[in-house]
Amino acid sequence: MKRIKLVVSYDGTNYYGWQKQPNAVTVEEVLNRELSRLLGEAVEVIGASRTDSGVHALGNVAVFDTDTRIPPEKISYALNARLPKDIVIQDSKEVPPDFHPRRTDCAKTYEYRILNTRFPVPTMRLYAHYVYKPMDVEQMQRAAAFLVGEHDFASFCSSGSQVKETVRTIYRLDLKREGDLVFFQVEGNGFLYNMVRIIAGTLIEVGIGSYPPEKVKEMLEAKNRITCGPKAPACGLTLVGIRYPVLEQPMS
Amino acid sequence: MKRIKLVVSYDGTNYYGWQKQPNAVTVEEVLNRELSRLLGEAVEVIGASRTDSGVHALGNVAVFDTDTRIPPEKISYALNARLPKDIVIQDSKEVPPDFHPRRTDCAKTYEYRILNTRFPVPTMRLYAHYVYKPMDVEQMQRAAAFLVGEHDFASFCSSGSQVKETVRTIYRLDLKREGDLVFFQVEGNGFLYNMVRIIAGTLIEVGIGSYPPEKVKEMLEAKNRITCGPKAPACGLTLVGIRYPVLEQPMS
Repeated sequence: MKRIKLVVSYDGTNYYGWQKQPNAVTVEEVLNRELSRLLGEAVEVIGASRTDSGVHALGNVAVFDTDTRIPPEKISYALNARLPKDIVIQDSKEVPPDFHPRRTDCAKTYEYRILNTRFPVPTMRLYAHYVYKPMDVEQMQRAAAFLVGEHDFASFCSSGSQVKETVRTIYRLDLKREGDLVFFQVEGNGFLYNMVRIIAGTLIEVGIGSYPPEKVKEMLEAKNRITCGPKAPACGLTLVGIRYPVLEQPMS
Repeated sequence: MKRIKLVVSYDGTNYYGWQKQPNAVTVEEVLNRELSRLLGEAVEVIGASRTDSGVHALGNVAVFDTDTRIPPEKISYALNARLPKDIVIQDSKEVPPDFHPRRTDCAKTYEYRILNTRFPVPTMRLYAHYVYKPMDVEQMQRAAAFLVGEHDFASFCSSGSQVKETVRTIYRLDLKREGDLVFFQVEGNGFLYNMVRIIAGTLIEVGIGSYPPEKVKEMLEAKNRITCGPKAPACGLTLVGIRYPVLEQPMS
């Protein structure tokens, strides 16, 4: 029995998120079905991030156990031949049998994209959130700086989350404009439910001048969701990748 | 009676190209229908570029005549409220009544995007052509240089075209790599049927080493379609915009 780690990319547009659920097609369900068919075993993957409906991924992570003789590196090719075109395995390899993608220290990177133009651009409508009010990127950068470091992000967590510990560390949050696109990448050791989308919604409010950058410091200190900006739409969000330091050391 | 010029952007994925035809939904047909409903007149637009099925546009151009009292600049907003999300008017303004978008000197800019990675990226599958063989961008740039200037592009025109005059001028063809994306913008005074997609297909062949850059010079001289590379897929192509020098002088 081997444990295999997959790096999974998908266009979230046509899925009700990652996690299996009744009466809706999810990424996890499609992976389980096609892996089971490919390997002739009942496979259930364990995912690293249970992304929401409409959220995209370049590098989500999933593991599963198998007795297959297909070499681990070849599973990506074999599985891609069966998957729909909006889910693509970027990498497959063997990992230690006790590796668990949610219970292992990691650094996750998300990207949020905002199209800031007079009118929306049709080819970007599913991959960037459209904001027509002009945004001041320098003000957004000032606001973003308050979020970097270890903080209690209780204000940046959707109600309904059952997480008790709300302290997280953001290693970096780089926001910039390239042409009509304003986007940021945020890397951290974990994110609360909807945290990146609430950060995005809050930074947009700062960008359009609803409140000054310093307000973000107050929001953090308040530790109360109602102080923050709205949750920005799912389409602008992409899980870029997940790094596991433990896997970067050679396997013994 | 006024003549109105529209700058039209669209995601070509779900359309059988620009031009009206039986039993297939086209961009022109949707524009005619929604303009006619908006203005209460039978409107038929004249388009600048009859883009193929699956080709995208940031700035195609169309004109139509109307008696409406809606101010020309407001037509974009009113029309966008009715159009599907994959067609968006970027600008509307009055132009001289004799302005014809296909019979007026212009400079058109197209972009072709190639995703050059080990595996495809789901969120780009509809907006870039995927090539897994590693491409040598410097060789592609050398090949592209042969195409710039005034040439007889007969070799770069799909058979079935009824155009007799095949001399065109390419003002610039800038090709570069940004991360996994290789793309070029090409600006010219006009393009033959499928010309940009045949250029893309030919440059890809050079990039993967099928033939040396100098072969492109021979292809031009041969003036025969069968000498060139294959036509690259529609999804990678976007009509970026069309400039009309005559409209850039103030209207009297």
